[in-house]
Amino acid sequence: MNPLLKLLEFGQSYWLDNLTRRMIKNGDLKRRVEKQGLRGVTSNPKIFHEAIAKSDDYDAQIETLIAEGRSNIEIYEALVTTDLQDACDILRPVYDELKGQDGFVSLEISPHLAHDTPGSIQEARRLWQTVDRPNLLIKIPATAAGIPTIEELLFEGININITLLFSIERYQAVAQAYLKALERRLEADKSVAHIASVASFFLSRIDVLADQLLSHRIPLEGRSHLEPHPEDLQGKVAIANAKLAYQYFKHILQSNRWKALEAKGAQVQRMLWASTSTKNPAYHDVMYIEPLIGPRTINTMPEDTIEAFADHGTVKETVEKNIEEAQKVITELEKIGIDFQLVASQLENEGIQKFIDPYDELLETLGIKCQQCRNRQQVEPLQDVAQQLRRLVIQMTTEAGSGHPTSCLSCAEIVAALFFHEMRWDPKDSNARNVDTFILSKGHAAPILWAALWEAKAIDEDPLSLRKLDSTLEGHPTPNNPWVKVATGSLGQGLAAANGIALANRLDDIDARVYCLLGDGECSEGSVWEAAQFASLNKLSNLVAIVDVNALAQSGPAPYQHDTQVFAHRFQSFGWEAIEIDGHDLTAILNAFEQAKKAGPTAIIAKTEKGKGVSFLEGKYGWHGKALDQESMDKALAELGENHANVTVEPRRIGTYNVPQRRPAPALSIDYSIGNQVATRDAFGAALKKLGDFLPELVVLDGDVKNSTRTEYFSEEYPNRFFEGYIAEQNMAGTALGLAACGKIPCAASFACFLTRAYDFIRMAGHSRPPHLIFCGSHAGVSIGEDGPSQMGLEDLAMFRAVSGSTVLYPCDGVSAERLTEQAAQIQGIVYIRTTRPKTPVIYTSDEKFPVGGSKTLRTSKEDKFTLVTAGITVHEALAAYDKLKQNGISTRVIDSYSIKPIDVETLSKAAHDTQALVVIEDHWIDGGLGDAVAAAVNSLAPVHRLAITEEPRSGKSEELLDRYGISKKAIAQKVLELIG
Amino acid sequence: MNPLLKLLEFGQSYWLDNLTRRMIKNGDLKRRVEKQGLRGVTSNPKIFHEAIAKSDDYDAQIETLIAEGRSNIEIYEALVTTDLQDACDILRPVYDELKGQDGFVSLEISPHLAHDTPGSIQEARRLWQTVDRPNLLIKIPATAAGIPTIEELLFEGININITLLFSIERYQAVAQAYLKALERRLEADKSVAHIASVASFFLSRIDVLADQLLSHRIPLEGRSHLEPHPEDLQGKVAIANAKLAYQYFKHILQSNRWKALEAKGAQVQRMLWASTSTKNPAYHDVMYIEPLIGPRTINTMPEDTIEAFADHGTVKETVEKNIEEAQKVITELEKIGIDFQLVASQLENEGIQKFIDPYDELLETLGIKCQQCRNRQQVEPLQDVAQQLRRLVIQMTTEAGSGHPTSCLSCAEIVAALFFHEMRWDPKDSNARNVDTFILSKGHAAPILWAALWEAKAIDEDPLSLRKLDSTLEGHPTPNNPWVKVATGSLGQGLAAANGIALANRLDDIDARVYCLLGDGECSEGSVWEAAQFASLNKLSNLVAIVDVNALAQSGPAPYQHDTQVFAHRFQSFGWEAIEIDGHDLTAILNAFEQAKKAGPTAIIAKTEKGKGVSFLEGKYGWHGKALDQESMDKALAELGENHANVTVEPRRIGTYNVPQRRPAPALSIDYSIGNQVATRDAFGAALKKLGDFLPELVVLDGDVKNSTRTEYFSEEYPNRFFEGYIAEQNMAGTALGLAACGKIPCAASFACFLTRAYDFIRMAGHSRPPHLIFCGSHAGVSIGEDGPSQMGLEDLAMFRAVSGSTVLYPCDGVSAERLTEQAAQIQGIVYIRTTRPKTPVIYTSDEKFPVGGSKTLRTSKEDKFTLVTAGITVHEALAAYDKLKQNGISTRVIDSYSIKPIDVETLSKAAHDTQALVVIEDHWIDGGLGDAVAAAVNSLAPVHRLAITEEPRSGKSEELLDRYGISKKAIAQKVLELIG
Repeated sequence: MNPLLKLLEFGQSYWLDNLTRRMIKNGDLKRRVEKQGLRGVTSNPKIFHEAIAKSDDYDAQIETLIAEGRSNIEIYEALVTTDLQDACDILRPVYDELKGQDGFVSLEISPHLAHDTPGSIQEARRLWQTVDRPNLLIKIPATAAGIPTIEELLFEGININITLLFSIERYQAVAQAYLKALERRLEADKSVAHIASVASFFLSRIDVLADQLLSHRIPLEGRSHLEPHPEDLQGKVAIANAKLAYQYFKHILQSNRWKALEAKGAQVQRMLWASTSTKNPAYHDVMYIEPLIGPRTINTMPEDTIEAFADHGTVKETVEKNIEEAQKVITELEKIGIDFQLVASQLENEGIQKFIDPYDELLETLGIKCQQCRNRQQVEPLQDVAQQLRRLVIQMTTEAGSGHPTSCLSCAEIVAALFFHEMRWDPKDSNARNVDTFILSKGHAAPILWAALWEAKAIDEDPLSLRKLDSTLEGHPTPNNPWVKVATGSLGQGLAAANGIALANRLDDIDARVYCLLGDGECSEGSVWEAAQFASLNKLSNLVAIVDVNALAQSGPAPYQHDTQVFAHRFQSFGWEAIEIDGHDLTAILNAFEQAKKAGPTAIIAKTEKGKGVSFLEGKYGWHGKALDQESMDKALAELGENHANVTVEPRRIGTYNVPQRRPAPALSIDYSIGNQVATRDAFGAALKKLGDFLPELVVLDGDVKNSTRTEYFSEEYPNRFFEGYIAEQNMAGTALGLAACGKIPCAASFACFLTRAYDFIRMAGHSRPPHLIFCGSHAGVSIGEDGPSQMGLEDLAMFRAVSGSTVLYPCDGVSAERLTEQAAQIQGIVYIRTTRPKTPVIYTSDEKFPVGGSKTLRTSKEDKFTLVTAGITVHEALAAYDKLKQNGISTRVIDSYSIKPIDVETLSKAAHDTQALVVIEDHWIDGGLGDAVAAAVNSLAPVHRLAITEEPRSGKSEELLDRYGISKKAIAQKVLELIG
Repeated sequence: MNPLLKLLEFGQSYWLDNLTRRMIKNGDLKRRVEKQGLRGVTSNPKIFHEAIAKSDDYDAQIETLIAEGRSNIEIYEALVTTDLQDACDILRPVYDELKGQDGFVSLEISPHLAHDTPGSIQEARRLWQTVDRPNLLIKIPATAAGIPTIEELLFEGININITLLFSIERYQAVAQAYLKALERRLEADKSVAHIASVASFFLSRIDVLADQLLSHRIPLEGRSHLEPHPEDLQGKVAIANAKLAYQYFKHILQSNRWKALEAKGAQVQRMLWASTSTKNPAYHDVMYIEPLIGPRTINTMPEDTIEAFADHGTVKETVEKNIEEAQKVITELEKIGIDFQLVASQLENEGIQKFIDPYDELLETLGIKCQQCRNRQQVEPLQDVAQQLRRLVIQMTTEAGSGHPTSCLSCAEIVAALFFHEMRWDPKDSNARNVDTFILSKGHAAPILWAALWEAKAIDEDPLSLRKLDSTLEGHPTPNNPWVKVATGSLGQGLAAANGIALANRLDDIDARVYCLLGDGECSEGSVWEAAQFASLNKLSNLVAIVDVNALAQSGPAPYQHDTQVFAHRFQSFGWEAIEIDGHDLTAILNAFEQAKKAGPTAIIAKTEKGKGVSFLEGKYGWHGKALDQESMDKALAELGENHANVTVEPRRIGTYNVPQRRPAPALSIDYSIGNQVATRDAFGAALKKLGDFLPELVVLDGDVKNSTRTEYFSEEYPNRFFEGYIAEQNMAGTALGLAACGKIPCAASFACFLTRAYDFIRMAGHSRPPHLIFCGSHAGVSIGEDGPSQMGLEDLAMFRAVSGSTVLYPCDGVSAERLTEQAAQIQGIVYIRTTRPKTPVIYTSDEKFPVGGSKTLRTSKEDKFTLVTAGITVHEALAAYDKLKQNGISTRVIDSYSIKPIDVETLSKAAHDTQALVVIEDHWIDGGLGDAVAAAVNSLAPVHRLAITEEPRSGKSEELLDRYGISKKAIAQKVLELIG
C-alpha cells in the first residue's frame, strides 16, 4: 500500500506544499487528489514567485488584465485568486465528503503585514471575500501581532492557517486564540461548526539553526567536554519540539473548555507539520515525516518529499512516542546554553524575510512582464511585416523551386525589426555611406533579405525572379544586387566583413551601426571567433551580431540546439556583451537593440524556431534548403493569414558625409642603385609607407608578422590606419574586404603560406568584386631557408590564379617590388603580391615601369637558343645561369615575368617563336604556378620545360635548398645543357 | 589638521582593523604609527584569512615551517605569532611612551572556543606566552562562557580585549568581570598597574539587523500607522545603544569601587567601537565615527573608513550628546515589538559564525599551500631537466644561427614534466600506439622537442644538427623525424590533429592520453576553437591542451598578454575544464595533469615568461625567432648553471595493443546499367558505405552536409566510425589527419568550395605525408545551379594539384565514381575526389577499371580532327558535342581524363599527335585546373584550347549556366567549328 494513503489510516492528512497553474491545468492536482489521497494544498509568496515568475503559464491572463487597465498589485492578486479558486474547487469534493474537516487550500497574506494587526485583519477579510470559497484557509503568521489577528478573523468566521510557528509558547497563544474566538462566536450566537483552523509548526528550519549553534560548541577535533555533548543533539531539536507541541495539543483536547466547544460542533484546530523537507543532505529525506504521524495532524510536503515518502516512507503511529526523550533534548539544549526562545525568535524574523524577498521580487518581475506585454501590443505593425516577409519568402522559393524558406522564417521578426524600425537607412540610395549596415552572414536566408528590400520599396525587381538567371536576387547574396556589400553564403564570413565596415565607419567618422545576422550552425566556424576577438580588441562598440539560434542545421540538429547560453558565454569570453532573447518576441528584439547601444560589441542570441509560423515546418527536421510545393505553399500561406502590413521606411541618415575625392597619386620616388641588396619584402614595406601619404584610403592589416612582411613601416607611420589582426588570417581577409566595400584600399599581409588559411575568404572576396583589395604574401618558396616547409609559400600562385578577376604579381628586386606595390593600389579588384625573404640585388633602375600584364626581357640576342622564363628570387638564378651558359657559348633569353596573371602572352609567344624551348623556373610547386601560366600563354608554340618544386622540401640554407630542389643557377644551366643534349 | 590626529585631542585613539605581513614589511604600519597617530591594531580570523590565503607573502615562512615538520595548525599559529610580535614591536614605542595606556595589538583565540570557558582560558594563556609581548591584547568574545574566562585571564595578568559586545547588559557583566579581576589581584597581592583591557562594542552589524526587522513593520506604500514610525528608527539603533553603553561606562568610573582600584594604579577598561565601517551604501560613510567621539574611547576602523574619515570626518566631543534621544530610540524599538536582547543574541551567534567560516577556510587553504610546498620539494629533479633543456635549446639555436629559443624557454618546465614524468611512452619505440601522445602545436618551439627527445635518449641524432639540411631536427617539426606524428608550424593546427589521435585511441580501445602544447598567440586562430568545440562535443576526456601563455607574440605583445583568465573562460565556454597555473611551477603543472584526469577535455592555461631563465631574454621584446650570438649564449649558459639533470625515462605502455592486419579488400560490387541517372556524389556515398565493411580502418568525417555529400550512407551504417564535424572544415581536415597518423583511412567530405576553408590544413597535411587521407569535394562547378557562386567549387582542382604528393580524381558517372572511391582508399597519401550535384547518365559498365594516372578514350576514329579532353560533368557535354559534330561530319576524339593528377601523359600525347588540337572542357576556373594539367602533359605537341569558367557566375539553372559560361555541348561544338574556321 502506498505509504501516503496509509497516512490517512493513522489520522494524518498530507498536503502539497506547492501550487502552480500548470498542475491545475494539466490535471496533476486533480489526479493527486483523486488517486493519491491528497487532502490539501499550501501556498506562500515563494511558491507564487516560482510559479509566476518562472513560467509563461500566466501570460495570457496578464495580457487580459493589462487590457483591463489593472495595476501590478491588482494583477498579482487576480492571478493568485484564480489559482486559489481553481485549487479550492479541485479540493471541494474532499471538503464536502469530509463535511468540512479537510480539503483546504491555504493563501498567505502579504508578508509585509506580519507585524500589523489591523492591516492583516483588513487584508484577510478582503482576500476571503475575493476568493470566496468555504475551503480556503487564510495564512496568518504567529507573530505577536498575529495572535489578536487570528482571534478576530476566526471570530468573524474566516478559516485560518497559523503559520511560522516555531515555539510551544507561541503555539499555546495560538491555541488559546482559537478557543477564544469560538467562545466569542457562541456568545454572539454564531455557529462554530464550519470554522476551520490549523496550526503550522515548522521543522527543518529549526534544525538548521539549532545545528549551527550546536556546532559552535563542538571542538575542531575530538568530542566536546561539555555535558551533554552538543553533537548528540544535532538533528533532534525540531522533532522534539514538535512532539512536545503535540502534547500541548492533546492537553487542550482533554480540557473541559474544549469539550464544551466540541459539544457545540467545533472542529479541532489540527497540528500541521510544515518545512518538512530535509535541508541537510546528510540526514534522512523523510526524517520530518516518519516520527510525527498521529491523529488529527497534517504534514504539508514539497513534491520531492512526497515522492521520497511514497517510495520508502514507513508509517506507524509515532507522534506520541519518545516524549521523554524529546523533553530531554529541549532541556539539554538549554543546559548547553542555547535558548530555544532566541532560536524561535530568530527563525520567525528570518521566516518573514524569506517571504518578503520572493514577494517583492515577484512584484518586480510582474512589473517587467506587464511592461513587456504593453510593449508587445505596440509592436504589432512590425509583427505584421514579419508575417508578410514569411509569406513572400515562401512564394519566392516555391516559384524558384529551391532555396531555404525555413531558414528565413526563423529570422523574420529580426529582419522586420532591423529594416522597418531599428536601422537608419535610405531605401532610395544603396550607395549611402552614413547609414547603418546590414550583413547577412547566414547567406542562405537571402530570400528574406530580398523580401525586406521589396517591402521597403528599396528594389523594384520582381521578388518572384529569385534564383533566375540574370536576376540580382540570387540564391545567396552577391553584389550583383546593389544592397549587398559583400557576398555571403560561405558561412562564418559575415562578421569579419562587418568588422571592416565598422572600422571604415570609425575612420570616416560616421557614427553608424553595423548589424550582422548569423546562424547558430555557422558559429562552429572558427572564423566567427577570430572576428569576435578582433571586434572586442578594437572596441567596435557599434557592432551588433544577432545569432539566429534556430537549432536545426542542414544535416541534423545544430550542435547546441536551443542552448542559447552556450553562445552567450562564448561571446562574453571573447569580450562581447551578450543578450539572450526570444527571437520571435519583437519587444525583446527591440529592447536588445536598445541595450546594445549602451556598450558593445554586442551579441544578441535569439532563440528561434526554424520554419516559424507554419505548423508543418516549425522545428521540423528535413526541411533545410527545401522549397514548398504548390499545395504546401497554399497551406502555409493560409496559416500565415492575410497581409495587414502597412509600414513604410522613412529615409534616415547619420549626420552628413561627403565622399572624399581621390587625389591622383604622384609616381613613387624610388632611390636604389643597381646592385643594392634589397629584399622585395623590404621594398614592398617601403612603398606602402610612401603610398600612405598620397592615399588616405590605404589601410593595412597584418597577422602578427608585420616585422617580417614589413608592413610595420606603414604601421609606425600611420598607426590609425594599421590594424593588427594577430594570428587570424581569415578575419584579416574578411575585415579587409569589409574595408574595401566602404571605399578603402586595404592591403592584408602575412607569410604567403598562411594566406592559404584565408582561401575561402579570398575566394568569396573574388565573388564580392571589391574595387580594391591587395594581399601580400611574403616568405614565398623554399628560399626562406631553415624554417622548413610549414613556413614556405609553395601554392600561393596556384591559389591566387584561381580567384575570380585576380591580378598576381611577383617582383624580383627592390625597384620592381616598389613599382608593383604602387600599381597594386591602383588596379581594380584583388591583387596578390608575392615577396621574398632573402635580399636580392637591385637589377632595375628606379625609373623603370612595370605595367600589369607585361614582362621584362633581361637578356636577349639574335642567337638565343632557349628562353629562361622566371620571376622573383629565381630571376637572379636565371641571370647567373645565363652567364654560365654564355661562357659555354650558349645564348639564352631571360624574361622576368613579374606579372603572372595577366601574363605577357605577346612577349612569351615571341620568345617561343624565337627560341627552341622555354624553361620556366619558379620557387613554387610545379603545378598551378608560373609554369602553367606560361604554358597556357604560349600554347603549342614551343615546348615549356619546368623547373619547380616537385618533392617535399626540408630545412636548410636558402641556397642549399634552391640547389637541392633544382631551381638554382646550377640546375638551370644543367637543364639547358640537357635539352641541348 | 588631519581629523585622525584630532581624535587624540578628544581622548579617542583610533586603531586599524587590519593586519597583514605586507604592511609590516613595507613599512606602512610603522608609517601610520609614526606619522598618522595610529595607536593600535586589531585582528580577527577573517583578517588573517585575507592576509594569508590571498597573498604569497607567507610562503617562505611556510616552507621553513614545513621543513621543520610542523603541522598545519602549528604553521597557522607560527605565521600569526610572527605578525603579532612584529606588530607589537612596531606599536611598542607608543605603549612605552604612554606608559602602557595604549599601543596595543589584539589577537583572537580560536572562534571554536567561543562557548568553552576552560578551553578559552587554556588557549589564551598559551597564546599570551607564545607571543610574549606586554602590549598584546587577547580577544575573548563576550558570550556567557566568555565572562568567567575574561575574569580569570585578567586575574592572571593577561590583557584582554572583549569582543562581540552587542548589548549593554552583557557589557555590564564584562565591566564587572574586569573590576572583579582587579580586586582579586589586589587580594592576591598582585599589581594591577599593567593590566589592560578594552570592551569592544559593535556597531554597524546592529543596524543591519535592526533595520531589517524595522523594515518588516514598514508598509510597501505610505507610512506605517504604527507609533512610533519604524522608518524613523532605521540607522539609529547602533549609535543609540553605544551611547547608552558609554553612560554605563561613565557610571562605573564614578563608582567608589572603581575609584578604589584606580587609587591602586588600575587602568580604565576603555570602550572600543568596532564594526564601524558603514554597510548600507545609503548611509554616510563615517556615521559610526563622528557621533561616538569622547574620552577614553577607541575606534577601530578598516582602511577605507580611516581614509574616509581623514578626508571628510568632523571631530567634536559627541559621545555624550543626545543621550535622551538615544534612550528614546531604544525604548521605541521595544515599543514597536523588537526585542533588543534578541537582536544582540542573534548578532552574537552570527558573529561567531562569521569568524568560524574564514578560520576554517584559512586552515583548509593552508593545508593546500603546505601540500603544494611539499610537492615542490619533490619536483627538483624535473626542474634540473627543464634547465638542461634550456641550455641545450640555446646551444642548438646558436649553432644553427636561427630558430626560436625564447619560445622554448617559456615551456621548459611543461615539456620536462610531460616527457620525464607524466607521459607514458617508450623512448625506444616511436611507432608504439598504446602510449600517450605529444603534439607540439606551437611548432616553432621544435628545438625543445628535439632537446627533450635527446635527453630521454629517444633520438641519437646530434642536437647541434638542428636546421641543417638532411637533419630530421628541422626548424619546425615534420615527420622526417619519427617522433613527429603531424607536421606543425602553421599555428592553430595541433589541437585538431590531437582530436583525431584521441578519436583513434578511442576506436582502438587504447586508454592513452593526448597532450597538445599551444602558444597563446595561436589561440587567435579560429581553428583552435573549432577543435575545442569538436573535442567537447565528442567528449574527448583524455585530451589535454596546455596553453603556454608567454604573453609575447612575434611582432609585439600577444593580444591578452598574461591574462590567463581570458583563455580559461574561452575554453570553459567551449565545454572544457580549465585550470590556470604558473607554468614554471612544476608542482602546479603536475597537479594540473592530475586534475585533468578527473574530467576533460582539459585546458591547462600556463602563465609563463618568454625567455624564462635568462635575465636578458625573460619577458623582453625583440627576441622572437632570434638565436643568440656566441657571446650572449655564453652569458645565458652561465646564468642557467651547470647540468645536474639525472633522470631517465622508463618505457611505459598502456595495456597491450596489436597492430591490426589489413585484410585485402575484394573489388566493390557495382550494379548500375548504362544510361542510369546517378549523381557521382551518390555513387561516392554508396562506395564508401560498401568499403566500410571491408575496411575497418575507414572513418568518415563531414561538415554538416552529409545529406549532400552522401557520407550519410556511411554514417547510417557505421555511426561509430562517422564523425560529424559541423560547419568547421579546418578542424575536420585536422582531425582527419590525426586519425590518418594513427593508421586510419579517413575520408573528409564537404562541398568542394568549402574545402578551401581548410587549405592551410590540407597543405600541412601534405607536409605530414599521411599514409592515407581522402578528401571529397561535392557540388563542384557552376553545374550546381541556383545556389550561386558562393556554393560553387571552382578552384578545388588548382588547390589540390598544388598539394605535396597529392592525387586528384574527378569521376563523371556512377561507375567511375565508385571505382575511384575504391581506389582512393588504397592510394598512398592525399587523394582528392571531386563529385557533382546533378545526376548524370552511367556511361561505363560496372566492371570497368579506372587506374590512377589513366584516362578513358570514349570516342575515337582514324579521322579524329580534334580531341575533346574533359572530366566530370562536362564529359556528358563533350559526348553530346561529339554527336552534334559527327552530324556535321567532323570526327572528334573524346577523352575522359578522370585522373587529373597524375594525368595520363601517354594517352593525351598520343591524342595531341593524332589530332590538330586539344579542346579541354572543365567546370572550374580556367586557371590551375584540367587545362593547365593537360597543357603540361602534352607540352608543345599540339595546341590546347580551353573552355572553362572565365567570368563571375550567377544563380540559374544548371544547364543554363553550363551554356552561359561556355562549357555546354553547344559551346564545345561551336569552339570546334570556330577552330576549323
